[in-house]
Amino acid sequence: MKIAILGASGAIGQAMLDALAQTTLVVTELKLLASSRSAGNVMHFRGQVYTVEATESTSFEGMDVVLGAISNELTLHYLPYIQQAKALFIDNSSALRLRADVPLVVPEINPEALRNHSGIIANPNCSTILVLMAVYRLHQVFGVEAMHVSTYQAVSGAGVEGMKELTLQLKQSFEKQPYTSTIFTQPIAYNVIPQIGTLLENGYTSEEMKMQSEGRKILNQPDLLVNCTCVRVPVLRSHSASVTVRLKHKASLEELYALLTSAKGVRYAAQECTPYYASHQDEVLVGRLKPDLCGTEGYSFSLWCSGDQIRKGAATNAIQILEQLVQEKHI
Amino acid sequence: MKIAILGASGAIGQAMLDALAQTTLVVTELKLLASSRSAGNVMHFRGQVYTVEATESTSFEGMDVVLGAISNELTLHYLPYIQQAKALFIDNSSALRLRADVPLVVPEINPEALRNHSGIIANPNCSTILVLMAVYRLHQVFGVEAMHVSTYQAVSGAGVEGMKELTLQLKQSFEKQPYTSTIFTQPIAYNVIPQIGTLLENGYTSEEMKMQSEGRKILNQPDLLVNCTCVRVPVLRSHSASVTVRLKHKASLEELYALLTSAKGVRYAAQECTPYYASHQDEVLVGRLKPDLCGTEGYSFSLWCSGDQIRKGAATNAIQILEQLVQEKHI
Repeated sequence: MKIAILGASGAIGQAMLDALAQTTLVVTELKLLASSRSAGNVMHFRGQVYTVEATESTSFEGMDVVLGAISNELTLHYLPYIQQAKALFIDNSSALRLRADVPLVVPEINPEALRNHSGIIANPNCSTILVLMAVYRLHQVFGVEAMHVSTYQAVSGAGVEGMKELTLQLKQSFEKQPYTSTIFTQPIAYNVIPQIGTLLENGYTSEEMKMQSEGRKILNQPDLLVNCTCVRVPVLRSHSASVTVRLKHKASLEELYALLTSAKGVRYAAQECTPYYASHQDEVLVGRLKPDLCGTEGYSFSLWCSGDQIRKGAATNAIQILEQLVQEKHI
Repeated sequence: MKIAILGASGAIGQAMLDALAQTTLVVTELKLLASSRSAGNVMHFRGQVYTVEATESTSFEGMDVVLGAISNELTLHYLPYIQQAKALFIDNSSALRLRADVPLVVPEINPEALRNHSGIIANPNCSTILVLMAVYRLHQVFGVEAMHVSTYQAVSGAGVEGMKELTLQLKQSFEKQPYTSTIFTQPIAYNVIPQIGTLLENGYTSEEMKMQSEGRKILNQPDLLVNCTCVRVPVLRSHSASVTVRLKHKASLEELYALLTSAKGVRYAAQECTPYYASHQDEVLVGRLKPDLCGTEGYSFSLWCSGDQIRKGAATNAIQILEQLVQEKHI
């Protein structure tokens, strides 16, 4: 299989390369595409050295699959060339996620959506993947009709530059220097910022609305209600969320616990469901299951989850989509 | 007035001393009491130098007021001696907060509770003070019947040692040394830990249940329902919370916004409701007011708040209680 990674030098592109290397997929040609700034850098894949190339309109010719990990704007710019080359496009940007002809897939949850693809498959928002992974078994059995979510999102959600800004500011605090803030609107060192994305007219941010709009599409439940508050925290890697679910059907704590401890891709980790333990591995860690003291008894529960948003929240999920397509011969 | 600060060398004790200095209260005698370990240290008050004394059973004799900022265990140990000395005790520990004969007071919310004190007044839990400050005007006008709260609590909630542990671990990460964890159960540098206090049988922690039990007492509403999840974040100072309130009476966003922008001790700070801006001042910063997409329209809203938990969440509130008592001649 001939594969191109578009945005190979970014945090997610690199993680896609690592995740791809771990699969049994046979890669006969690999193209690492990035901006001209990164061209010439070398990266490793299964013991071989590859040189990053500057992306051009002809870069996709002859490729079977393009894995996208670039901005919405650039995604829309390159899309016609990817389609012209007849390559299958698995895209991590949010530009195409809600298009009716684009499946939006978490392989553990809605692999069947892959059947009807027409050349483009979208990878969901990172926090949305992690929260849905935590609740999908509860949803399958008891039906989630509404969710309250407050997130604790790592700075790497804003890319490698977000991580650099946090560590720079921490160094500046040790050296009693003023903070340099360019990526975030105010210092993120020793701070939390309750706004990610653009503020919309309804009082929510673009990032917050993704949990509802993408959640509805992935769970195939157009009336799902989600109240999400997205918050940046001074964590380098792995997003967390405090989640309360309202169920359609009555459940007991024991039933939910049994589902969470047996869900695929999820690990119930009582004391260890934190970014510290969630990072650099693929499972979504879940914990703190408890009844919602504000909700109708048996119908409302809270839980906590942490997951590596660069891996399962982005790169791993995209590679799992590719594996699923190959396995079901949709490619 | 003769005042003793019990636990003067801790973070809250020091902040009590600073807050006391800012008032117009006439202090004719000041005793700074601490453990024998801190005895001999000097502290400043209104231009004068005071020496910290080791606390003894006779330390409270002749005092009018004792301000307590020590552990529950030591509070209960010294209580008989404070009462024997007939000093008024304003206590920041949680040991006495739920006793029927002990008013639990946030002066902006329930100053009337001070009238019936019998020598002890309790200062509420820090997160509880900050969240109730953010919602009390909404409660007064529309009635809060339930709250979902997820907190983002600073390490100084675990005292000066919590702050030292975070900065030590950050230094260790820069020097590529392993983390030393003694205060928190796992590294707090670049991490968030969704457990504060002891885990109880109902799945909540002791810290989480305070928001409901203390909230009920302060708001004089025994049926208030609170689902709280308390989370430690790598912030040095100021707690934050993501809050959704369910109201008894229908409200509009405009009505709530008008209440939040005119509430005493609260500032609606759209972009600046973060620990960075909340620290080292007394106002509780509120922002992100929005309708709850999961709730009944007009009856459920979300907001965000940040406040300095050492000042308004503890020391300032205690000193305000003292000022209120003096002003209303209850002392």
